[in-house]
Amino acid sequence: MYSVNVRDHFMIAHSFRGEVFGPAQRLHGATYVVDLELRRAELDADGVVVDIALAAELLRSVLAQFNLRNLDEDADFKGRNTTTEFMARVIFDRVAVRIAAGELGPHAGGLLAMRVRLNESHVAWAAYEAAL
Amino acid sequence: MYSVNVRDHFMIAHSFRGEVFGPAQRLHGATYVVDLELRRAELDADGVVVDIALAAELLRSVLAQFNLRNLDEDADFKGRNTTTEFMARVIFDRVAVRIAAGELGPHAGGLLAMRVRLNESHVAWAAYEAAL
Amino acid sequence: MYSVNVRDHFMIAHSFRGEVFGPAQRLHGATYVVDLELRRAELDADGVVVDIALAAELLRSVLAQFNLRNLDEDADFKGRNTTTEFMARVIFDRVAVRIAAGELGPHAGGLLAMRVRLNESHVAWAAYEAAL
Amino acid sequence: MYSVNVRDHFMIAHSFRGEVFGPAQRLHGATYVVDLELRRAELDADGVVVDIALAAELLRSVLAQFNLRNLDEDADFKGRNTTTEFMARVIFDRVAVRIAAGELGPHAGGLLAMRVRLNESHVAWAAYEAAL
Amino acid sequence: MYSVNVRDHFMIAHSFRGEVFGPAQRLHGATYVVDLELRRAELDADGVVVDIALAAELLRSVLAQFNLRNLDEDADFKGRNTTTEFMARVIFDRVAVRIAAGELGPHAGGLLAMRVRLNESHVAWAAYEAAL
Amino acid sequence: MYSVNVRDHFMIAHSFRGEVFGPAQRLHGATYVVDLELRRAELDADGVVVDIALAAELLRSVLAQFNLRNLDEDADFKGRNTTTEFMARVIFDRVAVRIAAGELGPHAGGLLAMRVRLNESHVAWAAYEAAL
Repeated sequence: MYSVNVRDHFMIAHSFRGEVFGPAQRLHGATYVVDLELRRAELDADGVVVDIALAAELLRSVLAQFNLRNLDEDADFKGRNTTTEFMARVIFDRVAVRIAAGELGPHAGGLLAMRVRLNESHVAWAAYEAAL
Repeated sequence: MYSVNVRDHFMIAHSFRGEVFGPAQRLHGATYVVDLELRRAELDADGVVVDIALAAELLRSVLAQFNLRNLDEDADFKGRNTTTEFMARVIFDRVAVRIAAGELGPHAGGLLAMRVRLNESHVAWAAYEAAL
Repeated sequence: MYSVNVRDHFMIAHSFRGEVFGPAQRLHGATYVVDLELRRAELDADGVVVDIALAAELLRSVLAQFNLRNLDEDADFKGRNTTTEFMARVIFDRVAVRIAAGELGPHAGGLLAMRVRLNESHVAWAAYEAAL
Repeated sequence: MYSVNVRDHFMIAHSFRGEVFGPAQRLHGATYVVDLELRRAELDADGVVVDIALAAELLRSVLAQFNLRNLDEDADFKGRNTTTEFMARVIFDRVAVRIAAGELGPHAGGLLAMRVRLNESHVAWAAYEAAL
Repeated sequence: MYSVNVRDHFMIAHSFRGEVFGPAQRLHGATYVVDLELRRAELDADGVVVDIALAAELLRSVLAQFNLRNLDEDADFKGRNTTTEFMARVIFDRVAVRIAAGELGPHAGGLLAMRVRLNESHVAWAAYEAAL
Repeated sequence: MYSVNVRDHFMIAHSFRGEVFGPAQRLHGATYVVDLELRRAELDADGVVVDIALAAELLRSVLAQFNLRNLDEDADFKGRNTTTEFMARVIFDRVAVRIAAGELGPHAGGLLAMRVRLNESHVAWAAYEAAL
């Protein structure tokens, strides 16, 4: 199995609901350094898993939907805790839809799986992965 | 599949037995930077894989059993080489027992797998992973 | 010249005022991974620059004043932009006051200089340094 | 499952053919920081996945075939794009042959799988993994 | 003293002349992860060392002059070894000229010094720093 | 001012004397990832600060004096605490003597200063720097 990873980041404010979160129930924020990993069984005719420039652009475009915003004000997340693992899934889903729509080019049909990892500090990160 | 990772470290002395270890048969030591990764299929009602504060506390508590000690003097390791991979398994087992005992809270029953990685330098690390 | 560095982090929400900040004028947030470096010309009688455990506690205590908060609501920062470089200076000043008050122990009088660096992502950081 | 990883690097020149590569069709180069991960189900009698010194030597020896060279002039890669993912596979195959030839010692027969990851910058990497 | 750092990278081919370089006399290449650090004594009216977006753009623009090229074919470097430390200086000089020309905006006059560091692998880097 | 850095590591056991060290008074150990930085005002005729291969060899040779040993048994350190900052100085001094003896080659006379940094974990490091 081959895999390719591109990295970018976004910075957001948010707050959590639930006693388990303690002081993180207050409005605070995070920098998320995001790793987007794409997997396929064989390389395409050009010798790549995916056009890495397109993958980087797609990741940047999806992260721009959240970057420099307060997630508490995003209608899509109403009533949800925008935890690191939750956001990994949200980004996975939004990237997956756009891959399905062809944004990674004609050869991207061979992609089998994807992993989105959000690094929130030097001591913590979360990820979501699934088949495509 | 979701995953969450917390990082901590411990510092120990030890020596190895067996010609394969060469000069590492002498008493020496290591800093192990430890990554504890927990995986589950669905988030709990709070939107998390696990209470990350509890996970960090549990990891710290298990590492404290070894931190700033000479592993050669630990009766539990008598006759064993406390290699990086061996210690990854030891930590896995001790964390797993305490997860089973409920230390990560009532929702941690959904955890499916765990990975413990010990980074011993900028050029070497070892890990142990298994289902919970 | 000797130096010692301890690392910790904090997570905050804030917004900036001024056209130069573009979309960062919106409420957003950041994880700051903080490096606190202390310098002195000679080691003390124990052979250290400073009691590193006390230094780590002091850093944690100062960061706790901001951690998991919205800096826009902090009266101390009214009318100021809490940029990365500004916060590096704020932390420098608060740590310096407590060093002067003796929180790093009796031998810390030999400290000559300090540097506070805030890493805000994998591609950007800012710092403030000065004599003590 | 246990795993052990060793890290080394190599520096090469190359160029790519195909419009998808844009300006990377020009002769350019890369530093690849290589992670070689070996996996097995149980530790050997010495308590290790593999003799890590032998693994590091083997990796260094394979990378020396490419290090400080222009891959465009390597007859083995004639007509192929030496992309990061392609080179990950090449290194996997060459290491695998030498493991099969016994270069990792008598206990290395227990190795089940291997992963070769090439880190090409702070924002991109590629890997190839398979059973041994 | 305040400082701000932005990071980017470029990938080049080159070769060196001189026996001291050994096998690096062959055509090879490198990824350089570049850290551009700017220093000033006081923050500007917005509370920053420099408009970090402008600094990142300027760095990217200067690196684009070399990125994905063979430095041996660059007329500016004829008869010179494009070592890591040499390239650090070249980038310093080109960025400095553009800062002097006002590309970092009206407040950048307060900048006192700059450091350019080129990270060429996980075990080696070089830098050039000077007053502006 | 130019600078060049090479990185290597060593692993040791030791214990400390003095109440300030708390549990670190027990025999324990550490991995030290070492950064050796050399500085000079102008590049030599080859365009380098120093022959980086010689610098890496020299660092490795000095670290080999300590690697995989118990520092408590080293007669040179009798009655001293082998703290991270102390060891940074020891390595500085031993490298400096060998630079003075010509081990970095005929052009190394231009070196002005050196910094030795020992990274002991992901959250702590210490350094010693001085003129040569």
